Amino acid sequence: MNKKILVIPGDGIGPEVTTWGKAVLEKIAEVYGHDFSFQEALMGHVAIEATGNPLPDETLAKAQQSDAILFGAVGHAKYDNDPAAKVRPEQGLLKIRKELGLYANLRPILLFDELLDASSIKPSILKGTDILFFRELTGDVYFGEKKRSEDGNTASDLMIYERYEIERIAHKAFEAAMTRNKRLCSVDKANVLESSRLWRETVQQVSKNYPEVETEHMFIDNAAMQLIKDPKRFDVVLTANLFGDILTDEASQIAGSMGMLASASVGDGTGFFEPIHGSAHDIAGKDLANPLASILSVALMLDISFGLKAESQLIIDVIKKVLAEGFRTNDIADGSTNPYKVLGTQDMGKLILKFIDQQS
Amino acid sequence: MNKKILVIPGDGIGPEVTTWGKAVLEKIAEVYGHDFSFQEALMGHVAIEATGNPLPDETLAKAQQSDAILFGAVGHAKYDNDPAAKVRPEQGLLKIRKELGLYANLRPILLFDELLDASSIKPSILKGTDILFFRELTGDVYFGEKKRSEDGNTASDLMIYERYEIERIAHKAFEAAMTRNKRLCSVDKANVLESSRLWRETVQQVSKNYPEVETEHMFIDNAAMQLIKDPKRFDVVLTANLFGDILTDEASQIAGSMGMLASASVGDGTGFFEPIHGSAHDIAGKDLANPLASILSVALMLDISFGLKAESQLIIDVIKKVLAEGFRTNDIADGSTNPYKVLGTQDMGKLILKFIDQQS
Ligand SMILES: CC(C)[C@H](C(=O)O)[C@@H](O)C(=O)O
Ligand SMILES: CC(C)[C@H](C(=O)O)[C@@H](O)C(=O)O
Repeated sequence: MNKKILVIPGDGIGPEVTTWGKAVLEKIAEVYGHDFSFQEALMGHVAIEATGNPLPDETLAKAQQSDAILFGAVGHAKYDNDPAAKVRPEQGLLKIRKELGLYANLRPILLFDELLDASSIKPSILKGTDILFFRELTGDVYFGEKKRSEDGNTASDLMIYERYEIERIAHKAFEAAMTRNKRLCSVDKANVLESSRLWRETVQQVSKNYPEVETEHMFIDNAAMQLIKDPKRFDVVLTANLFGDILTDEASQIAGSMGMLASASVGDGTGFFEPIHGSAHDIAGKDLANPLASILSVALMLDISFGLKAESQLIIDVIKKVLAEGFRTNDIADGSTNPYKVLGTQDMGKLILKFIDQQS
Repeated sequence: MNKKILVIPGDGIGPEVTTWGKAVLEKIAEVYGHDFSFQEALMGHVAIEATGNPLPDETLAKAQQSDAILFGAVGHAKYDNDPAAKVRPEQGLLKIRKELGLYANLRPILLFDELLDASSIKPSILKGTDILFFRELTGDVYFGEKKRSEDGNTASDLMIYERYEIERIAHKAFEAAMTRNKRLCSVDKANVLESSRLWRETVQQVSKNYPEVETEHMFIDNAAMQLIKDPKRFDVVLTANLFGDILTDEASQIAGSMGMLASASVGDGTGFFEPIHGSAHDIAGKDLANPLASILSVALMLDISFGLKAESQLIIDVIKKVLAEGFRTNDIADGSTNPYKVLGTQDMGKLILKFIDQQS
């Protein structure tokens, strides 16, 4: 299979982790005889530094011409301390999601039993959890009009949804539920928000096409609680952009660490694959980042964008094996109780490559 | 001390739990020689049924004339399934918060060591946690303009803040931090939202008046994760209405159960005290509700509105004692590992009264 893949490393630990995502793609190509070609492009703070623009036109053009995109992270401490900054790294990410029409962000909460200990949640609560989040990605308060009054004293963001935006992602989520445990929980705040009432109405409507799926509606506050109280009750979770942002970060504790969670953004254009973690400036350049989220993003890419199920599964199996043999990065090593073999980013990356060679 | 207290039981388990909150107030009055007088008023679904209005004028007038309000919960399954309903129980709650100017919602996450087992989070992660949330309560997307297009296909809510709204609650939160561990974490989404950028700017500004307080700014997605990953890192958490709604429900897992968390809403008018749990229709009328959140709301009332510290502390001590002796309601009994004495709502309420008699 011939595929053109764009790598956008971005900021912070982005370059460190995508290096290993890319290396895994190269290894898979070698082992299975595919022809993957790679390009690189800038986004985020590094793009602002180089061009003044968090999403240069050239990056967008390359993205549109690729078959899939492997993305790292964007962000920089500088902007976090300067809320008045007009140009920001995150704008690049939001813009590319919108421009490519990537309205559905899939975030599987894949729990490796080997990591039951790494979580702050009790293993007995976690065991057996398998959740697939569908986060809407091109609407909501992220993209509604933003305003600041002239005196600077009033600021607003419009939380807005249109029915078709909800319908299209709802269909995707219900279709996924049909291939899984046939349960779908839609999360909103319909007791307060008009946009959530449209959300709930629309999901109720769409659910009629999937009578086999058991559909439930839950308020976001309750969902944030249930997710850690009883994660096994969830199968597919469907929610809006902002609520999905919050819930999936919270859900990282189920997988043991943010460093284990990948996401796929799909819709009209080229599929976009990224860890759910951010640029993590504090550990950047220290060989501490966990490359597994980027490598799992590659597994999602192979499956979802290229239909290469066996290749995708091999990566997951290899990760399982590496964990089973006691190898850990810092974020998933509970040093106190177990004699794990703790590896840096590079050594973990290399080990995954080696195990792919052995398994295939 | 003479005080006029308004009791608003509301819907679902509201009446069951406020019964015991009120009984504890009566017992405290008896023991300490105070003169508390009580009135009742309608709100929520029961008010809609009786008057067509979720917050009848009479209720508001009584509220304004009282020294403190003990509230239960509002809500009904009927409206959850009918997103198009125009009149809703929650409108009563939102309106009374606004009318009384209750802009600061204090939610202490009070962890009883006796309940370390009841949580889905590991005891080792929890032990020592003590967080005080300041949730802004009369602004944000809760009160911004709501719109639905004529064709019904577009819906929006305005997320909006004014500088003075942020300033006044920030001052309250910093003042509280000064009496605690002098750490304050302000939570927003300033990498995406303009209203959050105003939030962050304003908190940065206010923080200059409290140089002794170590101030941190965190994005809501990260906060939702850190709260369960490492709850001890938080002391005072300051956040907006919507983010506070989500984070505090999530935080209920720290206290073991939603049934253990009380809140105080304060600002310009009469203080308003309520459990953070909702109306919980599914267990209403079954003698299953935990009355301790309502009783802890009373402890907050005695402390915050009446300055009766000893009385307030007595209630907390009594609850600790009851838990230490192994008494539990259903929500906090981990039946599998420990031989707890599980009580219904009424028996737990009676036991608290008995222990107050014994301790005083
Ligand atoms: C960096 C930020 C804009 C982004 C978001 O909020 O969508 C991130 O948190 C994510 O979840 O991908
Ligand atoms: C019932 C609802 C309107 C309310 C809120 O969202 O504020 C509740 O969840 C709360 O936290 O008090």
